Amino acid sequence: MATLQDIGVSALINLFGAFMFLIAFAVLRIQPINDRVYFPKWYLSGERNSPRRSDGTLVGKFVNLNYKTYFTFLKWMPQAMKMSESEIIRHAGLDSAIFLRIYTLGLKIFGPVMVLALVVLVPVNVSSGTLFFLKKELVVSNIDKLSISNVQPKSSKFFFHIGVEYLFTFWACFMLYREYNNVAIMRLQYLASQRRRPEQFTVVVRNVPDMPGHSIPDTVDQFFKTNHPEHYLCHQAVYNANKFAKLVKERAKLQRWFDYYVLKHQRNPHKMPTCRIGFLGLWGKMVDSVEYYKQQIKEFDHNMSLERQKVLQDSKLMLPVAFVSFDSRWGAAVCAQTQQSKNPTLWLTSSAPEPRDIYWKNLAIPFISLTIRKLVIGISVFALVFFYMIPIAFVQSLANLEGLDRVAPFLRPITRLDFIKSFLQGFLPGLALKIFLWILPSVLLFMSKIEGYIALSTLERRAAAKYYYFMLVNVFLGSIIAGTAFEQLHSFLHQSPTQIPRTIGVSIPMKATFFITYIMVDGWAGIAGEILRLKPLVIFHLKNMFLVKTEEDRVRAMDPGFVDFKETIPSLQLYFLLGIVYTAVTPILLPFILIFFAFAYLVYRHQIINVYNQQYESCGAFWPHVHGRIVASLLISQLLLMGLLASKEAVDSTPLLIILPILTLSFHKYCKHRFEPAFRQYPLEEAMAKDKLEKETEPMLNMKADLADAYLHPIFHSFEKEVPLSSSSSSSTEEETHQEETAEVRVDKHEIHSSSPVTELGTPSHHHHVYNSTSPSSHYASAYEQSSSQYEYHYNTHQYEEHEYRYN
Amino acid sequence: MATLQDIGVSALINLFGAFMFLIAFAVLRIQPINDRVYFPKWYLSGERNSPRRSDGTLVGKFVNLNYKTYFTFLKWMPQAMKMSESEIIRHAGLDSAIFLRIYTLGLKIFGPVMVLALVVLVPVNVSSGTLFFLKKELVVSNIDKLSISNVQPKSSKFFFHIGVEYLFTFWACFMLYREYNNVAIMRLQYLASQRRRPEQFTVVVRNVPDMPGHSIPDTVDQFFKTNHPEHYLCHQAVYNANKFAKLVKERAKLQRWFDYYVLKHQRNPHKMPTCRIGFLGLWGKMVDSVEYYKQQIKEFDHNMSLERQKVLQDSKLMLPVAFVSFDSRWGAAVCAQTQQSKNPTLWLTSSAPEPRDIYWKNLAIPFISLTIRKLVIGISVFALVFFYMIPIAFVQSLANLEGLDRVAPFLRPITRLDFIKSFLQGFLPGLALKIFLWILPSVLLFMSKIEGYIALSTLERRAAAKYYYFMLVNVFLGSIIAGTAFEQLHSFLHQSPTQIPRTIGVSIPMKATFFITYIMVDGWAGIAGEILRLKPLVIFHLKNMFLVKTEEDRVRAMDPGFVDFKETIPSLQLYFLLGIVYTAVTPILLPFILIFFAFAYLVYRHQIINVYNQQYESCGAFWPHVHGRIVASLLISQLLLMGLLASKEAVDSTPLLIILPILTLSFHKYCKHRFEPAFRQYPLEEAMAKDKLEKETEPMLNMKADLADAYLHPIFHSFEKEVPLSSSSSSSTEEETHQEETAEVRVDKHEIHSSSPVTELGTPSHHHHVYNSTSPSSHYASAYEQSSSQYEYHYNTHQYEEHEYRYN
Repeated sequence: MATLQDIGVSALINLFGAFMFLIAFAVLRIQPINDRVYFPKWYLSGERNSPRRSDGTLVGKFVNLNYKTYFTFLKWMPQAMKMSESEIIRHAGLDSAIFLRIYTLGLKIFGPVMVLALVVLVPVNVSSGTLFFLKKELVVSNIDKLSISNVQPKSSKFFFHIGVEYLFTFWACFMLYREYNNVAIMRLQYLASQRRRPEQFTVVVRNVPDMPGHSIPDTVDQFFKTNHPEHYLCHQAVYNANKFAKLVKERAKLQRWFDYYVLKHQRNPHKMPTCRIGFLGLWGKMVDSVEYYKQQIKEFDHNMSLERQKVLQDSKLMLPVAFVSFDSRWGAAVCAQTQQSKNPTLWLTSSAPEPRDIYWKNLAIPFISLTIRKLVIGISVFALVFFYMIPIAFVQSLANLEGLDRVAPFLRPITRLDFIKSFLQGFLPGLALKIFLWILPSVLLFMSKIEGYIALSTLERRAAAKYYYFMLVNVFLGSIIAGTAFEQLHSFLHQSPTQIPRTIGVSIPMKATFFITYIMVDGWAGIAGEILRLKPLVIFHLKNMFLVKTEEDRVRAMDPGFVDFKETIPSLQLYFLLGIVYTAVTPILLPFILIFFAFAYLVYRHQIINVYNQQYESCGAFWPHVHGRIVASLLISQLLLMGLLASKEAVDSTPLLIILPILTLSFHKYCKHRFEPAFRQYPLEEAMAKDKLEKETEPMLNMKADLADAYLHPIFHSFEKEVPLSSSSSSSTEEETHQEETAEVRVDKHEIHSSSPVTELGTPSHHHHVYNSTSPSSHYASAYEQSSSQYEYHYNTHQYEEHEYRYN
Repeated sequence: MATLQDIGVSALINLFGAFMFLIAFAVLRIQPINDRVYFPKWYLSGERNSPRRSDGTLVGKFVNLNYKTYFTFLKWMPQAMKMSESEIIRHAGLDSAIFLRIYTLGLKIFGPVMVLALVVLVPVNVSSGTLFFLKKELVVSNIDKLSISNVQPKSSKFFFHIGVEYLFTFWACFMLYREYNNVAIMRLQYLASQRRRPEQFTVVVRNVPDMPGHSIPDTVDQFFKTNHPEHYLCHQAVYNANKFAKLVKERAKLQRWFDYYVLKHQRNPHKMPTCRIGFLGLWGKMVDSVEYYKQQIKEFDHNMSLERQKVLQDSKLMLPVAFVSFDSRWGAAVCAQTQQSKNPTLWLTSSAPEPRDIYWKNLAIPFISLTIRKLVIGISVFALVFFYMIPIAFVQSLANLEGLDRVAPFLRPITRLDFIKSFLQGFLPGLALKIFLWILPSVLLFMSKIEGYIALSTLERRAAAKYYYFMLVNVFLGSIIAGTAFEQLHSFLHQSPTQIPRTIGVSIPMKATFFITYIMVDGWAGIAGEILRLKPLVIFHLKNMFLVKTEEDRVRAMDPGFVDFKETIPSLQLYFLLGIVYTAVTPILLPFILIFFAFAYLVYRHQIINVYNQQYESCGAFWPHVHGRIVASLLISQLLLMGLLASKEAVDSTPLLIILPILTLSFHKYCKHRFEPAFRQYPLEEAMAKDKLEKETEPMLNMKADLADAYLHPIFHSFEKEVPLSSSSSSSTEEETHQEETAEVRVDKHEIHSSSPVTELGTPSHHHHVYNSTSPSSHYASAYEQSSSQYEYHYNTHQYEEHEYRYN
């Protein structure tokens, strides 16, 4: 057990570590060469094109020579605070702004309570002095003297603790209510202030029934024309595009080679780049690479255009899903909220997520399969949370020296060396666990995908929930009660329900020192590491050195990252849990939590303003979960305090404390009814008001044009933009023919005519000017122009791949 | 513990008792004098006006002289089976038909399983013969030799039991699925086949916000004109009519006196009936009663008409609730299923219950109050279920002889008498419990009312749920584990979760004999008592002898009763639970359950056809609850079998059995998604189809006229019909004036114009001809005519009072 001194040393070390990170950050961030690592958001928003420089020299291009800026190394903190909340919403979206509010909520809840607890509870605990008599025992640390452990059994002083728990619960509920209210209002205001977006008019319909003799688009069209005659506008079918996606990937590869050879030629205009066309470029005929790839791409484009038509026309490749659009927000809201068919498993409607938020692969899961998937994943998550040690122990048993010897006997001479042996023995068993914990969030995301949610935001929320359960059981309970989660489960099943809070409650005060260290290591130092962005920094410079050929490549090398809700929110919730549980037990833990919240708030504010680029906008859809889990933490703390007091023979207090969970639960229920619908459904009043306003301001709208292709799978978009551009070098008659072809395809796509390209949602338009600055040279000028005009397509493909990579 | 012989004797006694009841029923039902007791449904449906007679003699009017009919005393059984299900739906409504299906479901589930269990499990149990060695112990009865207790621990024979449990679960789930499907289809068909009814077009809106400067009708009108512009038609405000209701009651009293004196005069035309007008008719001026009451009623009517106008015009008496009507089923369905306001606690919409199903008093409860009420009632129900013995024990401690002596010392000479003393000592303590159990359903209904549900059908379902929990804990668990529910709760809290099923599981086989007796006493004999209708029989004849003055009185004396869902469904669910739990444990219990289901099915079929008159039609809205609780019974049986096998040291079987609850739960979840929406929401597809059909068949509908006043509080209706009739004896100008007044009132009632009286829903119209057969006499003819024309009103008031009585 750590003494106060140990904690102090640990705090100093961590503070020092965090301080070093901050110094490093302060120095690195002002170097122009790192500008794209620490300020990518400004590049993406188009407000910055090249790094700021201190002076005009060549060195100044890479290193900051203005020595004054080195002395104001904490300048980023006030800078981060400058931007107002409404500016943040405009700049980075509502999700980020609401995410920051979680930290301020933490400060608001724990700030006043910390003062109260330190002023009231610490003196009460210290004055009791039971533990001074037991000083020789090992379990007693100095921290414990400040905690509830120091109060002797049956003492009437416990009423102070109960009082603080009451006050704390009321205060926390009050703050939670206010915050929920604020967030709900912010969300509605944000939705109301949004300009017209396709998701406002669109509903995703799943489980379209298979009508014999009718194609799916016909069925959908007929159904909605019949049942929503006044507002139905059109719909977009969803295609099974697996084969086409493969082609898109291959074409992207060809494009990269083409770019590479064009650049190679530009740098060395006198030598024609050549390559062999045989296996892996090792043998075969030697050809002019640029010309070869140009030809290849042309052929490929022709094939793709055929394949594209095939996909869009073949009714067998249509999935029983559709994005149905209405001519008003009211119509869409009505359709999303009502039951369509008398068989409630068919024609399932829900508001469409924004196009970039859709997880396309899950759109076509039938209803019965969803039930089974949820069951299977439910069981798997339970098993993962409670039995994850079993496979790891198995791997660990393999990954020791004997196992290694058996698998790879030729390594024996090396593994016999003493220092390697000891290293491996200390390292290998831990490695399995480390790898597991590292990949855990991805595993959980994968599990959520199997469950069949169709929006990335929902997938992340579900993964976050699973991660929270895992941490609750394995970090919180696992630290308090020794033993694996499986052993805990076993002992819980064989203890009485009243015994469990007692068992946990007793150990809680003893683990305060552990959690203080945890907060400092995982919290303080982790957040300081977050701001330093060591990994993106290194990767950016490596890419910059070896891969970046064009400005566009530099843009691609820039990795702004994003707030990873599925990891950060569960960790945050764990800190809330720790703070709430220890408020009445060991209040000395609160300052550490508060410092974490304040520091993390500053860091994330800075990062959100300067770095992160969110992938989607869910308008704070995660808030009900945050609220719910903080309330759950309140309940846990009340139960544990009851158990703790029962073990202190203060059972008389149970009736006093049993009121709290009941009140907390009904508070939660009330909040759920009061606020949650705002996060689930779009009220008709709002929809109608928005519709009316729009009709007054823009009476001559072409709805269909606005909605055209918004919900076409992104790979079709990318190709669409590419085809007319690539054929621009050929005759205009060809182009016309092609457009006719496209039109033919469109007839099949039921009333959606892409009269305007969709720039708002897909690609940020500020990329156009990046490659305009590069000037083409030599006789490949036209080819290069062509290729540069294809960047639009290129970028799209890249985005799509990134997308694939991130979510597979 | 009962031996097989004891059970046999008990079965014989009960069979004999049930048989005697049936004989008595067979004799009584064919007496013409009892015709209105055993066949009231036919009188109410207008198909029978006077009792059937065997011959024309005077005696034949009262007693059945046709001796042949006495020999066919079970003739009612085939008669009850004659009517087809669709005829029952037409004759008695869908609720009754679906209620009967619960019994056939029981037969279908338990029939095949009984054969399997008797053929497989009984031989397995008997052949094991462990208990033969322990014969001397008291706990062993012959029944136990047929049960699982007889199998020795660790025997591999338990796999038979597990197998039967598996087969049973699959079979039960299969039948449940089929039945749920059937019931859902029946419900949708019934809804589709219904002719136009106000509830199809109407939505009840609660928590209308208070807009300063606007009256509630204005607010409602504006809101729905804005947000449902295409389908909104009109709305009906709800008035606080407490004062008016009092007046209606008083007028009814006057009317009864008037009728009494008119009749008195008719019987003795030579003597004018007189009365005193002072206190209680004891002193004061002597007046001509008929003239006096006639005058009184006239004055009263004038006051009432003033009060009525006042209520309907005073905006302060309007409640923040409204019935909003739409011009199509589609519009109403959309409004009921969507969220209207951005504050989800305002403008709460839901489909309106049919007018006779509304519990008017709960319409105006604000949202926050509902949350608190639900919390308070939740805690109260928990307390009632687990601690109900405490107040009863308290009352019992008061209600003994000493208590009586203290409260009423003057009774001491009597209570000292030996036989009275022993009677009181044996009787008084039990009395409190008896009274409690007797009033329990009413108490539970009262609690549900406090929770704030607005439909009688919902109130009854909620009361049924509470009653089920009470029976589950106090009858099922209470019989298995000795001790009060409070003691059980205490022991459960201090046992581990794995220990609880074991504790209960062990006792289960031992209690089989008790439950067999319970089924025979409560089930067989109770159902036989149900068909005899002893209480209504006695009451009808008493009323007939002393109170009935007119034919109309005779109609009122007839008490058809109704299937009391809030008592019968929970008891039924208890029988399902018993059958399901004992299938694998003591299969010999199944025949008793099966006999119960078959017998009860016959009896209720007979009663539904001939006797009961349901108060409302919920279209089988109780089915999801029935389904859910049968599934819960399956889960309970699986857990208890696991516990039982664990106590038999067959722990290896746990993994085999743990799959079952998981499968059962996911079956339940699937069913919930698949079928429950059909019971909660009206699909748009159906609504639109119905709308279209109607538009084609009846293109010139006056919607507003149809909806006029359908949702006015019944007391306003009754008065409305009464006023023009009572003034029919006066000049026609007066009538016109009055109609103008009414029209004035209507303007305030926002677009609803009662151009046609609502006969479909309020009063069954077949009552008109009853008093037409009576001919008036003497100079009171006109007065009598007037009074007879007021029967319409009278009957309404009576209905309203009955209504009040039943639900207060």
